[in-house]
Amino acid sequence: MAGSDLRTFFDPKGIALIGARSSPGFGYGIPIVLKHHGWEDRLFQVNPKGGQLHGMKVYESLDEVPDSVDLAVIIVPAPAVPAVLEMVGKRGIRHAVIESAGFSEIGTEGRALQDRARDVAVKHGIRVIGPNCVGVVNTSNKFSTVEVIDESMEPGSTAIIAQSGVFGAIMLDMLHEYWLHISKAATLGNRMDLDECDLLDFFHEDEATKVIMMYLEGAADGKALRETLDRVARDKPVLVLKSGRTSAGRAATASHTASLSGEDQIYDAVFKQTGAIRAGSLEELVEMARVFSTQPIPKGNRLAVITSSGSLGVMATDTAVSCGLAVPELSEATAHRIREGAPGWMNVRNPIDVGPSPQFPVALAAALDDPGVDLILAITVLPYAIFRAVTSRGSTGENWFGHIEKIKAEGPSKPMVVCAVGHNDFVEKMREISGVSVPVFVAPEPAVKALASLHDYAKFCGRL
Amino acid sequence: MAGSDLRTFFDPKGIALIGARSSPGFGYGIPIVLKHHGWEDRLFQVNPKGGQLHGMKVYESLDEVPDSVDLAVIIVPAPAVPAVLEMVGKRGIRHAVIESAGFSEIGTEGRALQDRARDVAVKHGIRVIGPNCVGVVNTSNKFSTVEVIDESMEPGSTAIIAQSGVFGAIMLDMLHEYWLHISKAATLGNRMDLDECDLLDFFHEDEATKVIMMYLEGAADGKALRETLDRVARDKPVLVLKSGRTSAGRAATASHTASLSGEDQIYDAVFKQTGAIRAGSLEELVEMARVFSTQPIPKGNRLAVITSSGSLGVMATDTAVSCGLAVPELSEATAHRIREGAPGWMNVRNPIDVGPSPQFPVALAAALDDPGVDLILAITVLPYAIFRAVTSRGSTGENWFGHIEKIKAEGPSKPMVVCAVGHNDFVEKMREISGVSVPVFVAPEPAVKALASLHDYAKFCGRL
Repeated sequence: MAGSDLRTFFDPKGIALIGARSSPGFGYGIPIVLKHHGWEDRLFQVNPKGGQLHGMKVYESLDEVPDSVDLAVIIVPAPAVPAVLEMVGKRGIRHAVIESAGFSEIGTEGRALQDRARDVAVKHGIRVIGPNCVGVVNTSNKFSTVEVIDESMEPGSTAIIAQSGVFGAIMLDMLHEYWLHISKAATLGNRMDLDECDLLDFFHEDEATKVIMMYLEGAADGKALRETLDRVARDKPVLVLKSGRTSAGRAATASHTASLSGEDQIYDAVFKQTGAIRAGSLEELVEMARVFSTQPIPKGNRLAVITSSGSLGVMATDTAVSCGLAVPELSEATAHRIREGAPGWMNVRNPIDVGPSPQFPVALAAALDDPGVDLILAITVLPYAIFRAVTSRGSTGENWFGHIEKIKAEGPSKPMVVCAVGHNDFVEKMREISGVSVPVFVAPEPAVKALASLHDYAKFCGRL
Repeated sequence: MAGSDLRTFFDPKGIALIGARSSPGFGYGIPIVLKHHGWEDRLFQVNPKGGQLHGMKVYESLDEVPDSVDLAVIIVPAPAVPAVLEMVGKRGIRHAVIESAGFSEIGTEGRALQDRARDVAVKHGIRVIGPNCVGVVNTSNKFSTVEVIDESMEPGSTAIIAQSGVFGAIMLDMLHEYWLHISKAATLGNRMDLDECDLLDFFHEDEATKVIMMYLEGAADGKALRETLDRVARDKPVLVLKSGRTSAGRAATASHTASLSGEDQIYDAVFKQTGAIRAGSLEELVEMARVFSTQPIPKGNRLAVITSSGSLGVMATDTAVSCGLAVPELSEATAHRIREGAPGWMNVRNPIDVGPSPQFPVALAAALDDPGVDLILAITVLPYAIFRAVTSRGSTGENWFGHIEKIKAEGPSKPMVVCAVGHNDFVEKMREISGVSVPVFVAPEPAVKALASLHDYAKFCGRL
């Protein structure tokens, strides 16, 4: 289907919220969020009881809502869904998010109910997201069919496709804590109609989206997923967390969003062949998204490690080499530049262990300039007692390590990340001097792995 | 050497701090920390300039300090160290922490200086920690030769052995944020005399220490390490982060704490044969320490996963099976107990996905009671919007998931951890209801890996 068809889900002219209610639940919370974000004039709550909710009229029937309504958000009990869809179809609405649970994920009976609902949707030509999901979020117009906190509505460039509604919701809850902001999100649930391929195609064409993050338990259609990724992943990075790796894990997915995961090796092969980047864990997915959404694609595999801790430099080097990066000798010119003004004990190698010297910003700038360096890891580590003593005398993290964001701005074409280990206050200061353009990690291994995934992608796309 | 000989390093009768000074640095900061923790009457600052510092007398010479002094902490420039050690020896002090840097880690010249210092120490029978380190911490008597924050002085049961001083210091800065508290810590630096084997033997006999955490770049003596671990690791878990895995990483260690790491496979074999548990990353080291220091050793490999999110249950199951744990069917009695009062849609399998039902505490208690379950993972996940709505009506995380700490107290013989993913405030609430006895992780994979390492250890020790 054409990607443009899905636009209504993310940017509707009018929304009928079927199942608005005065007691706790989605039907109570979603209108509050929509009103809060300025959708009051385009939101039409529907409940046979009528009346008022949140200071807005409740329509007793779908017949009463205006013609501008092009999206139905359905939050009624599962058994009522087919009849509601029938009314939606008759009203001429062609897009529906079904959030209700109790369909194929609960067994045979639910599966039959879902089939009946699908028949109604097909008959009327209604495109459906769900059931058993929390629908969509669009940060650019602040539209959402799920209760999200304000922090999650800050616009960013990462799109989320999540098979599970709860998973999508908790990602929205936590990503802002990693300074990661999203463009749009879609949770798919039981995929009665639209699936991950439709959303991949849509986000492929979506200008606000630079990176696509996807959580999948099993493909709706393996062949279609392969073909879609083949189209999309080369243009826009697609980061995938695919669970159900093991047979026990696969068995567990069956009762959840009602898909049977395929064999893991096949998925692995599909991701590798199409250039989709597979995350090994939830944390890896988030960490890769932070790097892909902020950093350029590297032109080679040569990593410079600038560190104030020898130990962490060694750990980073181990991880880098294990992940296909090189940690080569620095050029004579770069070494010379760093050595100027450096104390006698400093070994100017790579990793560049500046220890407690003032050479950190010098080394950082030199590595950015060195044509023999493709990626940069800055390990900013300082025992808190020292940091506290330094700052109490009016100095700052910036005086010690340089203003990392500004230094990076001088060499924007090279990916760079920071690793700060230690006390929370210290890590926070490092985030401040790194800004939004340089992600800060709290351990060396994940920082290097995220950089290495950028290199993997560059290699796949033939950009090296 | 006998472990008892090292006690003075952690519990001295009197300390001579040689190199006390009024300008920033260790010689300025350490007396403040010692005074703050009540060591004023046993601390003797030494500096030829004499006078007063921090309201305490500065002795012009070591000859003036009282006979009770049995530990010297040396913070003078490297070239002065041999002469200072000579005075220490003549004064009859037999324990010295040398924090000064500028020895074998900087090359040939430094190596020669270190050899001279060692000759002096040997001549006088002085046992030495360092040089190029930050010495020791003992939380039980609040003694420390390094500036640590108060939070790190809270007594716990994990001992730290760190080859690098900076690494040891930043661990002390961050561990309290993971609710991990230490018994004692020792940083070894260049290991002129005492090395990791001496400390392993000492912590083996130390009653305050239940778990030993070790960071190593290379063994001082491979054969001795093997023999020591063989003695120690079976009695007390030894968790090791060994860097320099790759040849590039090994090359990087050479210029840092002046050791040449051996081949990685040999280390791997030594750890496997002796029962020491190797961490794959800094985060894994910390996460394993949290579990080993709070949880019992399991009696088998059967994991029950109780979850409010199907997706995270699947991820946990994948990781469990990959790490040698089983996620078996529940007994009929347990399933029955959970099914009572559960909504119709709930599938009582393992993982036990209770969804948004109130069955979480019931399932948790049932799994603790089930003789077919050896380890428990509780995945407490709730979209923040729902959690906020629930708590705004006076309910709490405890009402939803049960008071996890109290439930666990009913089945203290089974290891149990919590995984809470989502908004920071939500995770904090989960920490509160989990207490100090149940560690909370923020992603499923590390939680399961930490549990699996407990099982690996049980298997090695023949406790299964």
